[in-house]
Amino acid sequence: MATPRRTSRDIRSESRLDVLHAVLVAGETTRNEIARTTGLSPSTVATIVGELIAEGIVAETKLTVGRVGRPTATLTMNAARGRVVGIDVAETYVRAVMFDAALNQIASVDDPRDEHVLDAGTVVEGIGSALDNLLRQGGVTRADILGVGIALPGLVQGVSGASGVVPHWNWDRVELVHLRDRLGLPLIVDNPLKVIATAELWLGRGRYCSSMATINLGTGVGAGIVLESRILRGATNSAGEWGHSLLVLDGRRCRCGRHGCVEAYVGAPGIQQTLREIEPGHPLADLTMQRDFIRAMADAAGLPDPDPAVKKTIERTAYYLGSALADLVAVVNPEIVTLTGWTTWALGEYLLPATRARLIDQAPGRAAADLRLEVSTVRGNIVATGVAAIALERFLTDVGLLTTRIPITL
Amino acid sequence: MATPRRTSRDIRSESRLDVLHAVLVAGETTRNEIARTTGLSPSTVATIVGELIAEGIVAETKLTVGRVGRPTATLTMNAARGRVVGIDVAETYVRAVMFDAALNQIASVDDPRDEHVLDAGTVVEGIGSALDNLLRQGGVTRADILGVGIALPGLVQGVSGASGVVPHWNWDRVELVHLRDRLGLPLIVDNPLKVIATAELWLGRGRYCSSMATINLGTGVGAGIVLESRILRGATNSAGEWGHSLLVLDGRRCRCGRHGCVEAYVGAPGIQQTLREIEPGHPLADLTMQRDFIRAMADAAGLPDPDPAVKKTIERTAYYLGSALADLVAVVNPEIVTLTGWTTWALGEYLLPATRARLIDQAPGRAAADLRLEVSTVRGNIVATGVAAIALERFLTDVGLLTTRIPITL
Ligand SMILES: [Zn+2]
Ligand SMILES: [Zn+2]
Repeated sequence: MATPRRTSRDIRSESRLDVLHAVLVAGETTRNEIARTTGLSPSTVATIVGELIAEGIVAETKLTVGRVGRPTATLTMNAARGRVVGIDVAETYVRAVMFDAALNQIASVDDPRDEHVLDAGTVVEGIGSALDNLLRQGGVTRADILGVGIALPGLVQGVSGASGVVPHWNWDRVELVHLRDRLGLPLIVDNPLKVIATAELWLGRGRYCSSMATINLGTGVGAGIVLESRILRGATNSAGEWGHSLLVLDGRRCRCGRHGCVEAYVGAPGIQQTLREIEPGHPLADLTMQRDFIRAMADAAGLPDPDPAVKKTIERTAYYLGSALADLVAVVNPEIVTLTGWTTWALGEYLLPATRARLIDQAPGRAAADLRLEVSTVRGNIVATGVAAIALERFLTDVGLLTTRIPITL
Repeated sequence: MATPRRTSRDIRSESRLDVLHAVLVAGETTRNEIARTTGLSPSTVATIVGELIAEGIVAETKLTVGRVGRPTATLTMNAARGRVVGIDVAETYVRAVMFDAALNQIASVDDPRDEHVLDAGTVVEGIGSALDNLLRQGGVTRADILGVGIALPGLVQGVSGASGVVPHWNWDRVELVHLRDRLGLPLIVDNPLKVIATAELWLGRGRYCSSMATINLGTGVGAGIVLESRILRGATNSAGEWGHSLLVLDGRRCRCGRHGCVEAYVGAPGIQQTLREIEPGHPLADLTMQRDFIRAMADAAGLPDPDPAVKKTIERTAYYLGSALADLVAVVNPEIVTLTGWTTWALGEYLLPATRARLIDQAPGRAAADLRLEVSTVRGNIVATGVAAIALERFLTDVGLLTTRIPITL
């Protein structure tokens, strides 16, 4: 059985996506500039811009008359085309963010979530009420919303119809249908790692390279992988679970139940565990809230003469992180690795130099010769942004402009 | 800067490659059968078969007249179109294999190589004389050869023109030009991991899936990765260096100079090290030739009541291998993992069950839910076969049928 190849329709779709990215990223641009940045021919660009204008996605805002030749039209995303919503469902909170059609953030709602309540009805209602609050706050009705995207932790998709789309919540497709019915809007759900890779590809450093890994550092850790400008999903939408690859065989117990995972060393609780091993009685070793701990670490690391245990914890974490990144680089050999997530925002500047040194030292052969390791340039909630971008892609697919294959579209 | 997208020319190229694979794999086939197995339309198949016949790549061998309708032509590869040569340059030997244009093996030459002699002139001359011997043995002249492919250990390619295409030999592009001049034939060189993935994709289990990792187990270990039916090369042609990803942080010293690499545990010397740790005085622990050691292990494991130290070494190796494969599966999430290489041929049947169990237990989430772990079906020298297939692809590219991007074509 042959695998599906891309058709010429897919190629038109990819060219449209390139043009869309070019407009989105530039803010204001022109047809000539798009042709330059995308490498597409001026006539292809003109055709595609025409299609995007016809659908109200792109707008001509003004005409500039130069000294010679015809006036040049300025193009922007048509922000007023509608709203998209991205919802980041995490262990401890639900964050719903509203964007205009140019992916500018307009409003957001944060609701705490009790991480022990996994009853599907309660989770669905929590997401539903976050959306209701967001609409109220943004002063818009459901008719204004082009689509909603939700990132669900652990979302997978079986190749052979295996059940359990969110296995650790015991969710099946039927729970997703309940979710769609509760929201009453076109819905896509995706896995957070695919979502952060999408955000980085559309709005971050991924626009300038063809292969990339975006690392999320928070409670959990994982990698969103982009190859040839496409998200690597894998056979069951599970690619990028680098956080649960081994760093130390038979090492620390991970919350996934296995031993020695990367996450058990560079996830926020893992970093605290390292501090505890270095100095068991350290005042930061027993802070009960992860975010408080990471913030306190950053404060301590930023002092002129940092506490030796904090310094050593940062060094050790960079050693772990650099080693684990070298493994990812050994296998995938990307052009760039970017770091994101709340641990990155707090500790990134202290971790980066030693992590980079260890990564370059540890990556085999020439895999790291030209590699860049950088902090992501996508700010705000990268998960909400990424999943809103996928919801926008789905809208463009529904109107016939794209052929993106989104795993779960409801 | 946008990355190059596939053009409609690339899509025609991929369809031609699908048809070619279908003919190659079937041995004898028909246009209708090709349309069924590739999913291409009958008219596309007819056009492509016509092009391949015109170039002498495919031949119509006979007509079968059924009870109704028109006679059906049987199609085969045109084996007589010419010869391709694949050369596997390893640490300790040079093996040159001649294939007909249907990739059937015709002749082969094995020359030992002194692994300490890395002087470029000597290595080039060793490869050159292996080719001369092969031509003599096969009774053909250079004019009969469509192309030569050579797998060079450690071959990389810099994205920014970094020098050192075979860094650990200190080879630069100029040594490759000398090699081409010595051989006097169209030449491609590639990295062994990309080559085994190509062989598995063209002739093995890769024909039936869209994502796959092929693991080579020998002195060294590594992974050839196929995603969406294309070889994952990475930014510097270094993807798949899973053998030098970490299994044990700060663990055994690896011959690459780092510590704790997968290869240091499941490469042949690593397996011997495990036996040495389990029973230091064991008679097999000090065999000096790796292949003798692996063969002796297989003989011992095959006895009705195996030696406990041998049994424990196999169990421990399967534990290491399963753990390390779980990491690869966590990141790439392929449909299938295949094992190849001389350790696999000798020990595969003893390693496989426990490796599979550990892999499924250790892979995160649902990454291994539908995963298959199998021994490769490509027999003979998979490296020579794979690199000959790439040489054939290059020939088809030269005549305008394909658009394959082969990293180093000379
Ligand atoms: Zn884990
Ligand atoms: Zn190594």
